[in-house]
Amino acid sequence: MDLQLMGKRAVTAKYELQSMSSSQKKEALLFIADRLIKDASLLLEKNEIDIKEAQKNQMHPGMIDRLKLNRERIEAIAQGIIQVAGLQDPIGEVIEEILRPNGLKILKMRVPIGVIGIFYESRPNVTADAFALCFQTGNAVILKGGSDALYSNKAITDCIRSALVESKINPDCIQLIETTDRETAKAFMKLDQFVDLLIPRGGAGLIRSVKENSTIPVIETGTGNCHIFVDESADLEKAVAILINSKTQRIGVCNACESLLIHEAIAEWALPILGKALQEKQVEIRGDETTMHFLPFAILATEEDYGKEFLDFIISVKVVKNLEDAIAHINQYNTKHSDAIITQNQENAEKFLREVDAACVYVNAATRFTDGFMFGFGAEIGISTQKIHARGPMGLKELTSYKYMIYGDGQIRE
Amino acid sequence: MDLQLMGKRAVTAKYELQSMSSSQKKEALLFIADRLIKDASLLLEKNEIDIKEAQKNQMHPGMIDRLKLNRERIEAIAQGIIQVAGLQDPIGEVIEEILRPNGLKILKMRVPIGVIGIFYESRPNVTADAFALCFQTGNAVILKGGSDALYSNKAITDCIRSALVESKINPDCIQLIETTDRETAKAFMKLDQFVDLLIPRGGAGLIRSVKENSTIPVIETGTGNCHIFVDESADLEKAVAILINSKTQRIGVCNACESLLIHEAIAEWALPILGKALQEKQVEIRGDETTMHFLPFAILATEEDYGKEFLDFIISVKVVKNLEDAIAHINQYNTKHSDAIITQNQENAEKFLREVDAACVYVNAATRFTDGFMFGFGAEIGISTQKIHARGPMGLKELTSYKYMIYGDGQIRE
Repeated sequence: MDLQLMGKRAVTAKYELQSMSSSQKKEALLFIADRLIKDASLLLEKNEIDIKEAQKNQMHPGMIDRLKLNRERIEAIAQGIIQVAGLQDPIGEVIEEILRPNGLKILKMRVPIGVIGIFYESRPNVTADAFALCFQTGNAVILKGGSDALYSNKAITDCIRSALVESKINPDCIQLIETTDRETAKAFMKLDQFVDLLIPRGGAGLIRSVKENSTIPVIETGTGNCHIFVDESADLEKAVAILINSKTQRIGVCNACESLLIHEAIAEWALPILGKALQEKQVEIRGDETTMHFLPFAILATEEDYGKEFLDFIISVKVVKNLEDAIAHINQYNTKHSDAIITQNQENAEKFLREVDAACVYVNAATRFTDGFMFGFGAEIGISTQKIHARGPMGLKELTSYKYMIYGDGQIRE
Repeated sequence: MDLQLMGKRAVTAKYELQSMSSSQKKEALLFIADRLIKDASLLLEKNEIDIKEAQKNQMHPGMIDRLKLNRERIEAIAQGIIQVAGLQDPIGEVIEEILRPNGLKILKMRVPIGVIGIFYESRPNVTADAFALCFQTGNAVILKGGSDALYSNKAITDCIRSALVESKINPDCIQLIETTDRETAKAFMKLDQFVDLLIPRGGAGLIRSVKENSTIPVIETGTGNCHIFVDESADLEKAVAILINSKTQRIGVCNACESLLIHEAIAEWALPILGKALQEKQVEIRGDETTMHFLPFAILATEEDYGKEFLDFIISVKVVKNLEDAIAHINQYNTKHSDAIITQNQENAEKFLREVDAACVYVNAATRFTDGFMFGFGAEIGISTQKIHARGPMGLKELTSYKYMIYGDGQIRE
């Protein structure tokens, strides 16, 4: 695996991609979607190799399910590509126009980022999803998937590459790193000469490793210790619905609620109602001493519990003195992802919105809405929890950069 | 030097800063500018310690000049702060408003980044400049200046901190790392728990070191191997003026021209004219063989010369076959900073603008305009040569992030 060569090829592809028209890109994506469906038997055959290996290694059934392809899932992958092909191409948009007193005309134009590297774990569908988003925004992509899904990822990549060749497009718009050892992964993270951005999609361990080793700019995604604060004036019916939805509608996702805070003035009557609703959904409650007082079935929370992303039927609970306490607690323990207040008090809502340091701050709505599709972006490459470049759900625009094009007539600097 | 403690203090300051009004920030900045002038004698006294040490260490006179403060320069530093105080505060601006079919209202609002770390070398004025820009955008700043300027930087920081205290503002809005060894620098680069962004301002070595060691997102600034391509149809009078201005008006800056490309169809008559103009300004020419043919006084360029940022009275020159060759050469050797075409052909101009991969691409104007002030931003923290977050001149807006504030009425996800 010659990473330098892959880097050079990606750079060549990026220059070809940046001058492709929207309709060329759209046509290619539709053709690729069609080819994936036509190649379904081959994809399933290769996927079967990964599945057998996983079973041999006694992989957790939930993980095997994530790895598994079937005709329906391939259909869904193709549909995802078709959907991306239908989105507005953001490339070439003039974001700003500046006229200077010396006559210089400065256009700020949206352009592709260039070469994007994506690290991901076991889901083979990411191979196609990530490619489609990068391709539609004129970016070449180098993928590094998990070793568990190697045969599946390779089959999908090969299918896309051959469809690109048939479309008379440089197949190096997508390249897959097929060596799955750690040394190759680390060397990839140092490829800043060729790669403009790295996006790790996966667990906290993967993200930490990329942050620590990469010399390429990284966008951190995905960890979500999301809070719901039930304020003194909350509409409790809404609070129950939002809490249960945020906690239990899907437990393994980054925008699920992991921690409940409640104003002490209503804890006595409101906490038992919220606790009962959680209990009915088999959610384990880890609370502070005041919580234990109102919910005898709760378990005493450790300090660590408040910082945890459980991704499970577990929630941490704390009774707070007031809004300020709630905000301070959240800013200390959250992962800057999504937090919500349930309140009927407009002033408290505004204070919470402004002072909580998170990508998405909600009033009277579930944290589960932090999602590119729910925001109307039509797509999502991930949810950024950092403040640089992009924050929150990342759609097509967040996969672009800009350049300044300056028109002069002989201007020099005095 | 307890970096963890400094990080925690910066985070506390950032939360106080984010809710300050524009007028509070403005008033504080004007007060600080005033205090710097009043404290001039003390600042000069401390600066003298750095200067004496530099002389003892036989520092290059040009470097000593960069280090030196006098009343006029302190006046200029204060003026710079006053200017920043007069700029529009970008914080709180609603960038976008999204209404969703389920009734959710999503506001995308501009917010501070949080805590910004700045690495810089010998210029003590950066201490005040960087602080003013970060403060005006609601960011707390941790500074790490060069050891040569330690006493000067410390005096300026102390003056600003005491002025903040008098303004009843948390002085930890600015903190200076006073330990100047490498271990402290490296430990600072790992402070991602507290610091949201690192901006290194200095030479290529400093930037490389920060990129390699930091776990905090970094914005790369400053290296500029800028090209001017004189096309077949160029107005030669303009070409000469733009070339000489870009190369010689100030040689030590990142937006100075370092390389000249010329179309072979006009090389025979145009290159001697351009070469003579460069020679008159004592610029050493390092050219390819064709250049040597037309300019016998030139020196043969090495491959390495084309990739070099000379920051000196030296230029590399190459005769190219056509526009495509010029673009390919630039994309191979440039630092993605600023490149220009001199042409009367509109089609060639557009092709060059679109295909050259640089933050700023010019038609018929000097590369020296890549500058926050020249772009009308009113300020500049640096010039980004990467594609993530900000590209080209970085003013106040480029020191901000955004958050989504979502207003609901009980919405849950189906």
